[in-house]
Amino acid sequence: MAADPRFFPCAGPQTLASIATVAGGQYQGDAERRFTGVASLQAATPDEVSFIDHRRHLPGLKQSQAGAVVLPAELAAEVPEGCIAIVVASAYLGFARVARLFHPVPALEPGVHPTAVVAPDAEVGPGCEIGPYAVIGAGAILGAGCAIGAHVVVGPGVELGAGCRLHPHSCISHAVAGAGVVLHPGARVGQEGFGLLVGPDGRFETVPQLGKVVLGDGVEVGANSCIDRGSQSDTIIGPGSRIDNLAQIGHNVQTGKGCVIVALAGISGSAVLGDYVTVAAQAGIAGHLKVGRKARIGAQAGVMNDVPEGIDVVGSPAWPVRETFRAFSALRKLAQPPGSKKAGEKT
Amino acid sequence: MAADPRFFPCAGPQTLASIATVAGGQYQGDAERRFTGVASLQAATPDEVSFIDHRRHLPGLKQSQAGAVVLPAELAAEVPEGCIAIVVASAYLGFARVARLFHPVPALEPGVHPTAVVAPDAEVGPGCEIGPYAVIGAGAILGAGCAIGAHVVVGPGVELGAGCRLHPHSCISHAVAGAGVVLHPGARVGQEGFGLLVGPDGRFETVPQLGKVVLGDGVEVGANSCIDRGSQSDTIIGPGSRIDNLAQIGHNVQTGKGCVIVALAGISGSAVLGDYVTVAAQAGIAGHLKVGRKARIGAQAGVMNDVPEGIDVVGSPAWPVRETFRAFSALRKLAQPPGSKKAGEKT
Amino acid sequence: MAADPRFFPCAGPQTLASIATVAGGQYQGDAERRFTGVASLQAATPDEVSFIDHRRHLPGLKQSQAGAVVLPAELAAEVPEGCIAIVVASAYLGFARVARLFHPVPALEPGVHPTAVVAPDAEVGPGCEIGPYAVIGAGAILGAGCAIGAHVVVGPGVELGAGCRLHPHSCISHAVAGAGVVLHPGARVGQEGFGLLVGPDGRFETVPQLGKVVLGDGVEVGANSCIDRGSQSDTIIGPGSRIDNLAQIGHNVQTGKGCVIVALAGISGSAVLGDYVTVAAQAGIAGHLKVGRKARIGAQAGVMNDVPEGIDVVGSPAWPVRETFRAFSALRKLAQPPGSKKAGEKT
Repeated sequence: MAADPRFFPCAGPQTLASIATVAGGQYQGDAERRFTGVASLQAATPDEVSFIDHRRHLPGLKQSQAGAVVLPAELAAEVPEGCIAIVVASAYLGFARVARLFHPVPALEPGVHPTAVVAPDAEVGPGCEIGPYAVIGAGAILGAGCAIGAHVVVGPGVELGAGCRLHPHSCISHAVAGAGVVLHPGARVGQEGFGLLVGPDGRFETVPQLGKVVLGDGVEVGANSCIDRGSQSDTIIGPGSRIDNLAQIGHNVQTGKGCVIVALAGISGSAVLGDYVTVAAQAGIAGHLKVGRKARIGAQAGVMNDVPEGIDVVGSPAWPVRETFRAFSALRKLAQPPGSKKAGEKT
Repeated sequence: MAADPRFFPCAGPQTLASIATVAGGQYQGDAERRFTGVASLQAATPDEVSFIDHRRHLPGLKQSQAGAVVLPAELAAEVPEGCIAIVVASAYLGFARVARLFHPVPALEPGVHPTAVVAPDAEVGPGCEIGPYAVIGAGAILGAGCAIGAHVVVGPGVELGAGCRLHPHSCISHAVAGAGVVLHPGARVGQEGFGLLVGPDGRFETVPQLGKVVLGDGVEVGANSCIDRGSQSDTIIGPGSRIDNLAQIGHNVQTGKGCVIVALAGISGSAVLGDYVTVAAQAGIAGHLKVGRKARIGAQAGVMNDVPEGIDVVGSPAWPVRETFRAFSALRKLAQPPGSKKAGEKT
Repeated sequence: MAADPRFFPCAGPQTLASIATVAGGQYQGDAERRFTGVASLQAATPDEVSFIDHRRHLPGLKQSQAGAVVLPAELAAEVPEGCIAIVVASAYLGFARVARLFHPVPALEPGVHPTAVVAPDAEVGPGCEIGPYAVIGAGAILGAGCAIGAHVVVGPGVELGAGCRLHPHSCISHAVAGAGVVLHPGARVGQEGFGLLVGPDGRFETVPQLGKVVLGDGVEVGANSCIDRGSQSDTIIGPGSRIDNLAQIGHNVQTGKGCVIVALAGISGSAVLGDYVTVAAQAGIAGHLKVGRKARIGAQAGVMNDVPEGIDVVGSPAWPVRETFRAFSALRKLAQPPGSKKAGEKT
């Protein structure tokens, strides 16, 4: 079952040679044999290419009718009769490349939709596509080849590097973005952060939030995620970092490069993350903390202390993983009814 | 206090007979007596209808000035003097029906707003209402009687069954929806899932997400909730399932029919839920897990293992409810200060 | 480093006298000396004003090149040579006032954008600014000086008091708002709450949600946060309350004045919060609970019982803070490997 052609135009049949080239793999077979698309092991037909990257999926491979499978050398002998093995170093990566060969990123249709409102002094680089009802504010600067979707609002003075893609309903203000930045639908970048204080009359007053957001090259912000601008310094998301949907990044947060923030996670104001930090789904990091390079914050963790480099933490409060799992284990024993076998195994 | 007429036009006074008919109930009184609306027990006037579905609300019933109350047989004798009991099998359902009698779902105003952008080859079924600034993409197909709100974006090729209601600011792409599907404001369906891998140069690369989203008949997606399309297979939400606000459904998730996903919950990619599964507020389900039919995931639970049919789990990690509550109880005893009475009750 | 002039127009240089006046402070120095803006201690140049509000930031003060620093009396002697101390009762508040002096809230540009769709019977007060593609529904009433951003949807009959600011992509229906209410980008107010019941055929039916939302004066709703309207009564947010991003307020919730709801928190239907309640990030409050005045709900807490006035709770389930911390401490001891020193310290 190929990718639904209503949504994923196909570049047309591809030869085995082309496929193996983009996958970075070796094969034995007819270089000119044509395939029509990619599919999962379960769904693929003999005209389609699939992949397997781990031994645990072997049953699926054995049953598959895929005409060719991208896989690592150690699994090459497992392909069913008639199926061509395309042997690669990294099967998932190779497959992603093949999928992209069949379904290239849709080309932009450069031009400004007649309904788009573009400020007279905004600079729109060559090859940009600006969609229906987009609003580009005064003094905004769009690099070459940006795709601005329907209803997107780019605020005054905002700068986008080349090749940014802003999906429908996203908005960005008080921000500067590098090249290749992606905002998924409904992403919100640059709004006022949650800075309030109690005034002399007991009411809340807003503290002016005078920083901006800086998105490094290749940063992606998920659907409906929010990144608040800084209060006196900037909120900075390091190059290549990826933020999933419905995540919250508070004012003055700084991340290194290549960070991954998963859905519904929250990073409180002024926290600083090193390079390649992973924050799993629904985790929370308290304000002003430091999370070291390559640390990994587990799902639903509640980080209340700095996390050193390379450490994995989980739990709320978050402790190093082994410690947390011992705690869970101890707690589970305590939870056994009195007199049960499991209870008797208390340490 | 009737429903605010600025927001809830009233179909006009209704007779006791009509009211009892839609509620499915029996009464004693003047069939032609007219009532003007519905209200809570606390707020209702003698011209209004209320309901009670549980004994614990008896004080409210005793004090109520409602002219009629929808209720189960066992509470019928409790109505105040002069108040008419409308006896039904299910009071909440009966009341919902009465409320709807007074306040029918507003009829559509078929037509396409002059500012809507509708692709020339999009098919718009009879009786559709398309609101200001909506954008309907190339080849999209809308069934009869769909209501498309202001600023909604329906992506190219998207198919909506009859009677779908897409509220303002929602968007749907790479998707097929059945009949009567509802997207609440800001809901996001069909965007690219969180599929990334580490490329050979250490940078993230996007894995093409070539699946779509399939929403069964009657599915409702809450405000600002997100459903990502699949990577190679589809993300599938079973008929009649309801998703509350600010929830995240990852790529390749499949749910059975009649599932309930409450606010701020997250279902990670490739998890599979059976029929009638309930996932309570802020719960999380890890990727690739299986949750069996009619299982119930408690609020803030962290599900890290498959959940069998009909099992209730809570806690993070999530365990069967009785076990978790015993764990909490044991933990609370441990938390007592040394020498305190409660501490001495340790088992 | 001044606030980025692309995003924060500056009112121009200000005299020391003006600065001290708005800060409410005393100083010694040339009243006519001019400063150009505000900045953090780390970033400020001799033409800029900074602040310090706590001894722990003293190292930053010692290193600072700020020309003047707003601070409390006890730190006045610590300013570097040549730096002017502006002594105030409350440094953070004083600084916020100075920041606002340099960067006043941008004035509205009264008028209705030609692309805005305003219903003929909507009432738009004097001095309102209505932005591109905004939609103002039938019978809506906007007080004086409201700022309605691009793509905002104000539903039929909605009433906004004077000086409300609705940021791009927000929407509000079935609601009445007081003066000075702010909706940040993507905020959703007034949509149907999550009211469903199981019908006689086993399918879900929607219970008509016939209440509205009432936002008190000065309420602020964060980016992409959601407030559902009531089912029979109203959802009420008390004056001055502030809701951060990505938070969920369920139907029929009522809050007192000055409540603070932080990002990703969820308040389930019919919960009632007193005045000045704080709900920290990612916390959850179960339905129908009562949270007393000035109670504080900790980050990620799971509140399953009423919380009395003035009590601080944390944990899931949420217990009074001291109890929860003792529980964490006990759990951590249980988590030590057998025979370890820490394990031997078990109480």
